[in-house]
Amino acid sequence: MSERSYAILGTGALGGFYGAKLQKAGLNVHFLLRSDYEYVKKSGLLVESIDGDFTLTQVNAYDDVAKMPQCDVVVVSLKTTQNHLLPQMLPPVVKENGVVLVLQNGLAVEEEVAKIVDNVTIIGGLCFLCSNKVAAGHISHLDYGQITLGEYAANYNPMGITPRMQQIADDFTNAGIAIELTEDLLLGRWKKLVWNIPYNGLSVILNARTDELMANMHTRELVEQVMYEVSAGAKTAGRVIAESFIQTMLDYTVKMKPYRTSMKIDYDERRPLEVEAIFGNPLRKAEAAGVDLRLIRCLYQQLKFLDMRDG
Amino acid sequence: MSERSYAILGTGALGGFYGAKLQKAGLNVHFLLRSDYEYVKKSGLLVESIDGDFTLTQVNAYDDVAKMPQCDVVVVSLKTTQNHLLPQMLPPVVKENGVVLVLQNGLAVEEEVAKIVDNVTIIGGLCFLCSNKVAAGHISHLDYGQITLGEYAANYNPMGITPRMQQIADDFTNAGIAIELTEDLLLGRWKKLVWNIPYNGLSVILNARTDELMANMHTRELVEQVMYEVSAGAKTAGRVIAESFIQTMLDYTVKMKPYRTSMKIDYDERRPLEVEAIFGNPLRKAEAAGVDLRLIRCLYQQLKFLDMRDG
Repeated sequence: MSERSYAILGTGALGGFYGAKLQKAGLNVHFLLRSDYEYVKKSGLLVESIDGDFTLTQVNAYDDVAKMPQCDVVVVSLKTTQNHLLPQMLPPVVKENGVVLVLQNGLAVEEEVAKIVDNVTIIGGLCFLCSNKVAAGHISHLDYGQITLGEYAANYNPMGITPRMQQIADDFTNAGIAIELTEDLLLGRWKKLVWNIPYNGLSVILNARTDELMANMHTRELVEQVMYEVSAGAKTAGRVIAESFIQTMLDYTVKMKPYRTSMKIDYDERRPLEVEAIFGNPLRKAEAAGVDLRLIRCLYQQLKFLDMRDG
Repeated sequence: MSERSYAILGTGALGGFYGAKLQKAGLNVHFLLRSDYEYVKKSGLLVESIDGDFTLTQVNAYDDVAKMPQCDVVVVSLKTTQNHLLPQMLPPVVKENGVVLVLQNGLAVEEEVAKIVDNVTIIGGLCFLCSNKVAAGHISHLDYGQITLGEYAANYNPMGITPRMQQIADDFTNAGIAIELTEDLLLGRWKKLVWNIPYNGLSVILNARTDELMANMHTRELVEQVMYEVSAGAKTAGRVIAESFIQTMLDYTVKMKPYRTSMKIDYDERRPLEVEAIFGNPLRKAEAAGVDLRLIRCLYQQLKFLDMRDG
């Protein structure tokens, strides 16, 4: 049994799911909540999952980081649109020499965390998870769930597989969550953007599911062109994404069940969109290297319009 | 008084308006209609206009070109989405050595006409008109109305100001319609696209009026970038659009009343969109010259998706 304690900053569809799985496996988990605090403190968490439903009748629930114990591993599972809260949230809850595990979408989020806390290990996690929060304390896990972990270092220098990563991976694996380890977090993040940028963007802009985007020859072509632009962006960071990876993502999406992307769900629920983390940061990174990602910029501009008008 | 007879192929918001103005000025006008034929044959045309309302109680209405007399000037005022009908429609109704006046949006429409009829003069007209058909035989003219005329020659070689253009211009001017003459029809068409491509496209894709697009800094920037791409497209045809023209179009649109573009109206009414004439043809012309207009292609792909799904 691990001695490590976990803090979950953001107990939504993602943080709630992984946190509940860790607690169910016997770990000491502390959940930060906002709107669901009263309900969860009283009634716990319910997870409906394709891997089997379960209930946690009692959880350590908090409505304020100041009341939380310092934890060995602090999981950042807020939406990136809430990252302006991190400078207040993170320092009180993370132990000296502890770990901050960033389970967020997009690029450069670990850099932001590194500016806030010292003497911690920062690990990035790329989640392939399809889950929704359907009611207070009630999470519905529909599909997938694996996480790719990579350790962050300044300038995203590849760190290889570190013991710290391995420890976290063991905790998650014991909790029934599939883990892959990557030696190069930044490459992993750019590869995830190959999927996230075209599908999240176009699903919102065109009010479409993945299957509709792939069934029309024009949007299928646009998706592919945007993927190649993401690959060009990765190249400005010295990361190479093989053409075969792009073809695999296209084939994989054609075979997937019709899927409403997470950004489309946010848009439909009138929540703020993660435009800056998923589109703005890659754009700015490439721009700083002298490369203009024109299609991604076009999607960014369209999404900013929709987010500011409808969010 | 002019001796010229006019045929109006497509008696909608545009053809109905100009045709009615010509008849009101005393010209001999013949209207081709489809769904409104019975009504207009019986009850005529009503034009509500900022320049003054008027009614034509009796008009020459036809439901078939075969029943129409051959006319000196045949006005093509169908939507370009109907241009597949032109090979049957045009030859019976245009006089030997007559004029075909193409009052349509987009690029390369005169080229299509030139493939269909010989021994005629082809003149293109760029209409700056804001009007709607609000009911059968009932047209509402909201704003503007001027037409820029230019004569077509093979390869869009500039023809200067020809006597034929001047004759047509006189008929329209006598009917109270402001006319400008251009020596270079192709330049005129590309200049019109500077406005039409960004605003028509983004108004449909983002469900937005012109004022909303200009009020948001991101879409305002996108509009400008698309305008520069149209200018790059014009350059592949050897036509130069000054930067000051782009700034004028931006300023002019900011000062305009909030405006729902014609393509947005078509989309809202679930009519087919003029994507090929306005976006596809410029794209293909530039591509043939070795230039990829990436933003315009992106808008084209997005619009094709929406048109095929919702049209």
